[in-house]
Amino acid sequence: MTTLPTDRSYAAECDAADPLAGFRERFVIDDQSLVYLDGNSLGMLPAATAERIADVVRHEWGARLIRSWPGWIGMPGRAGDLLGRHLLGAAPGQVVVCDSTTVNLYKLARAALGARPGRRDIVTDDDNFPTDRYVLAGVAAECGGELHLIQADLDEGVTADAVRAAAGPATALVSLSHVAYRSGALADMAEITGSAHDAGALVLWDLCHSAGSVPVELDACGADLAVGCTYKYLNAGPGAPAFLYVSRRLQGALRQPVQGWFGQRAQFEMGPSYDPVPGIGRFLTGTPDIAGTAAVEEGVRLLAEAGIGRLRDKGVRLTEYLIALADAWLLPLGCAVASPRDPGRRGSHVCLRHPEAWRIGQALIHAGVIGDYRTPDRLRLGPAPITSRYTDVWDALDTARRILANRDYEAFPAEPAPVT
Amino acid sequence: MTTLPTDRSYAAECDAADPLAGFRERFVIDDQSLVYLDGNSLGMLPAATAERIADVVRHEWGARLIRSWPGWIGMPGRAGDLLGRHLLGAAPGQVVVCDSTTVNLYKLARAALGARPGRRDIVTDDDNFPTDRYVLAGVAAECGGELHLIQADLDEGVTADAVRAAAGPATALVSLSHVAYRSGALADMAEITGSAHDAGALVLWDLCHSAGSVPVELDACGADLAVGCTYKYLNAGPGAPAFLYVSRRLQGALRQPVQGWFGQRAQFEMGPSYDPVPGIGRFLTGTPDIAGTAAVEEGVRLLAEAGIGRLRDKGVRLTEYLIALADAWLLPLGCAVASPRDPGRRGSHVCLRHPEAWRIGQALIHAGVIGDYRTPDRLRLGPAPITSRYTDVWDALDTARRILANRDYEAFPAEPAPVT
Repeated sequence: MTTLPTDRSYAAECDAADPLAGFRERFVIDDQSLVYLDGNSLGMLPAATAERIADVVRHEWGARLIRSWPGWIGMPGRAGDLLGRHLLGAAPGQVVVCDSTTVNLYKLARAALGARPGRRDIVTDDDNFPTDRYVLAGVAAECGGELHLIQADLDEGVTADAVRAAAGPATALVSLSHVAYRSGALADMAEITGSAHDAGALVLWDLCHSAGSVPVELDACGADLAVGCTYKYLNAGPGAPAFLYVSRRLQGALRQPVQGWFGQRAQFEMGPSYDPVPGIGRFLTGTPDIAGTAAVEEGVRLLAEAGIGRLRDKGVRLTEYLIALADAWLLPLGCAVASPRDPGRRGSHVCLRHPEAWRIGQALIHAGVIGDYRTPDRLRLGPAPITSRYTDVWDALDTARRILANRDYEAFPAEPAPVT
Repeated sequence: MTTLPTDRSYAAECDAADPLAGFRERFVIDDQSLVYLDGNSLGMLPAATAERIADVVRHEWGARLIRSWPGWIGMPGRAGDLLGRHLLGAAPGQVVVCDSTTVNLYKLARAALGARPGRRDIVTDDDNFPTDRYVLAGVAAECGGELHLIQADLDEGVTADAVRAAAGPATALVSLSHVAYRSGALADMAEITGSAHDAGALVLWDLCHSAGSVPVELDACGADLAVGCTYKYLNAGPGAPAFLYVSRRLQGALRQPVQGWFGQRAQFEMGPSYDPVPGIGRFLTGTPDIAGTAAVEEGVRLLAEAGIGRLRDKGVRLTEYLIALADAWLLPLGCAVASPRDPGRRGSHVCLRHPEAWRIGQALIHAGVIGDYRTPDRLRLGPAPITSRYTDVWDALDTARRILANRDYEAFPAEPAPVT
């Protein structure tokens, strides 16, 4: 049990003392009463991003047309370097912004298997994000190998011991999420990377739920490969391009399967055969999404200004407070905390478990509190350190306790409508 | 030699009589004196698209946040159906908007090879667009096969006879561009598709330079697969998502390699293994680019309103006029027409050949006339039927004859600056 004052005035005091409080004003927020705890799914819109996209559209595209290409052509690498320096612990020339997380996972997993001749298997965990499991299963099958699933603890995530037990002489690649999408469990990147390397495997990290919420130290951890999205904590908008990281020491040895012209040396000579550039650019494929990449730059700049250390501190405090209020109010009403209680083992979102999680989530949205539902019985609440207030957490938990106490959720359908 | 009146008043009369002239006002054009003949590289910005993107950003993302997903989730298919119906001759449920052309080429080529057991080779032509050649070479190598290159005529493109000669019992896939990126040569889709089928191969068409400029009849031609970009004649902006077509009769039999969660049946149940939807949705991968897909919808709506028949008529007239003026003015100055003279064998752009093409192109841009250079000695001029005026063509050719006559191009560097 974590105990903290349960009076709303405590939350208001925390907001007043929050060194990051001013950043909320840098976002477009029409309805200040909306309690948005889903920044781990889709981050809010920075005002600078709305302006930048409009400028890219109206001026760079509309007015300057193809004359903007000299500036656009380097954007995937520039945005990648910015992201690497401020949020991923990656020296320049190792990160590019391109494609989707799914496509990047495929490219890097395939490249990794090609670089480990004699090894064909992949290790991941059975609670990894669906697209990771599906993509990795496809890559393993394509290469004649198998996907081994570590049984993850739904609440606590994956340990280095489990990786050590699963990785062996046939393992080409270990691929895990740094922060688990459901529980928010934070994996020990350095130790797990070391364990995988001890087994002779490469490691591919999915940073979707950690980039921008916890400090990531790819170079210092000796990581090989990483991918991640930009529409969660990086606030780049729905479907903005993802990123990928390939350690400099591996770039020359890896060949990705999608041999696109944006990876080609002297691209506009349009030569007869594929001859990829030696560096990180070889992991690019087709024409980059310019407005989306500009949005990534703006989002990263804002987080860089706030500082990942301060963002992490606030993320820890917000989730600790959320858990304290859940302990005080929701546990007696049938909820359980389904995330690590040790803040050092947790990202910036928290899961609560309740058999009626789906309906409670719908009732919360109806009441102006936005979190999300995750199978099988989880309510996921993700305060984004750059935009969320301590009072948002208080209001969300206060609303949840009323919904639970009064059984307001019974007015909502028992299951999600099927999506075909 | 094509002859048409060479006086500017003829161009002005054509503009005055142009049934599509009013569409130019629907675009954001700050500088009416700019002569833009590069719509085949990057189409202009429709005013409705600027507004739509701003609305998606400010309201759908900014204000409604994740509550917009019920509307967003079906966008790749809705935009695809719109495109299929109005511009590709494809019945609903066969086109989706997603990823880049390069990634889609990879996905479909790989799926095609998987569906033709016992066959591993791919046929394309040596003048196909670079990313096509590179991707196809990679896919063939991955599958243990070979890429066979038809020797294309740089000016006239690829014939069905050449395809018949190249495709044999080992050919799994024939992949060609419908309109050649350099010469603008228009391939005979029906006949070539038939020739490839006679050899037992599938056909994958690249529609980058034909979608929106010439009528495409995928279903009627019996085409199997197609991909294309949306930032040329579809005016969806730099790096907007591409599209792909898979004939309904093949969808169930094809499995694409990038097993992403957006292709998954009951996606949000996040089930244990990849189980793709039966239809076109199985060719989706990761989270779609929402603003980019919205831009595709707006671009397609505008072209649909103009009508592909009228767009094609105007494209033929604009390019005929361009060739007539080139014959009259530029041939005596050392230029040659390097595109088919038969309008039925030509898309909506024309290449001129000159040893100093690079410098002439730079001199034209300096003079406010935008076309582009293509290796080795081609100046490519692409009037987009929806935005270009007959007077644009006149002004471009008039400027070119002055640059050639006065050797103004000699003031520009002899070669493109190397891009590293």
